[in-house]
Amino acid sequence: MDAIEALTTRRSVRIYESKPVPESLLETMVDCGRLAATARNAQVWEFVVVTTAEGRSQIAEAADHGKFIANAGACIAVFCRESDYYLEDGCAATQNMLVAARALGLGTCWVAGDKKAYAEKVRTILSVPAGYNLVSLIAVGYPAQVPIPIKRELQEVLHWERY
Amino acid sequence: MDAIEALTTRRSVRIYESKPVPESLLETMVDCGRLAATARNAQVWEFVVVTTAEGRSQIAEAADHGKFIANAGACIAVFCRESDYYLEDGCAATQNMLVAARALGLGTCWVAGDKKAYAEKVRTILSVPAGYNLVSLIAVGYPAQVPIPIKRELQEVLHWERY
Repeated sequence: MDAIEALTTRRSVRIYESKPVPESLLETMVDCGRLAATARNAQVWEFVVVTTAEGRSQIAEAADHGKFIANAGACIAVFCRESDYYLEDGCAATQNMLVAARALGLGTCWVAGDKKAYAEKVRTILSVPAGYNLVSLIAVGYPAQVPIPIKRELQEVLHWERY
Repeated sequence: MDAIEALTTRRSVRIYESKPVPESLLETMVDCGRLAATARNAQVWEFVVVTTAEGRSQIAEAADHGKFIANAGACIAVFCRESDYYLEDGCAATQNMLVAARALGLGTCWVAGDKKAYAEKVRTILSVPAGYNLVSLIAVGYPAQVPIPIKRELQEVLHWERY
């Protein structure tokens, strides 16, 4: 898919077809995540890809806004080592993976991780060492329904030279 | 350009050819920014595109790690209204714009904004209202030199099922 098309047509998908996502596509997504922008090239990220029904259910149960992870094909948990720009790095990687998924014909939804009460529980479930912060949980699957939310127009958000 | 290629080949470019970036390309970049993922569809972002030499010099002078903005073709300042997930939103938009630029044959560099001592000064220079946080400054231009930093390998950062 053309890059600009993928960047502009990604939408949050929460309802998926009940079929698994091939490992090779999940690998391509994570490959795009690891090549996102990162402050001082620190690359403080680690990606845990959960595909089993049991693993997804455990995460869904912990994450109050991510119940649909149980019915997704997979879940990618993004962790970043505590550091000055860990949240920026983790978010850049997350967005890159969402766009990659769109290009691969997959749907995704970004579930918040940072600052959430369940972050530590998810870290424990996935055996991630202390000192790593959960930045996001990405639900991934073949889209069964794609919502079309209303977006602010370009001319409303773009300001030339000054606000 | 193919989406996966754009996502995986974006690099931080700090040295640019001395020629302006067409407005239409900057508009396409911001269009990709405004369509990035945003928590609860809040879209708390505003994008200020600075193209004049005077404007870029003022920002470069304020931003201690962004001196090369003075010699870029343009600078896109990303602001987000103070809210629970303003940093996540602003970073998703920033990454989308970096990838768009790559697809358009442009080079970029993400200069930190959030938590920086110069954030308020940049906000004032660009006449942005109080209550908006500077998330990033994106230097944009035609690349004169593209660095190839060492990246962690896929198998090092990808963990199946558990860490």
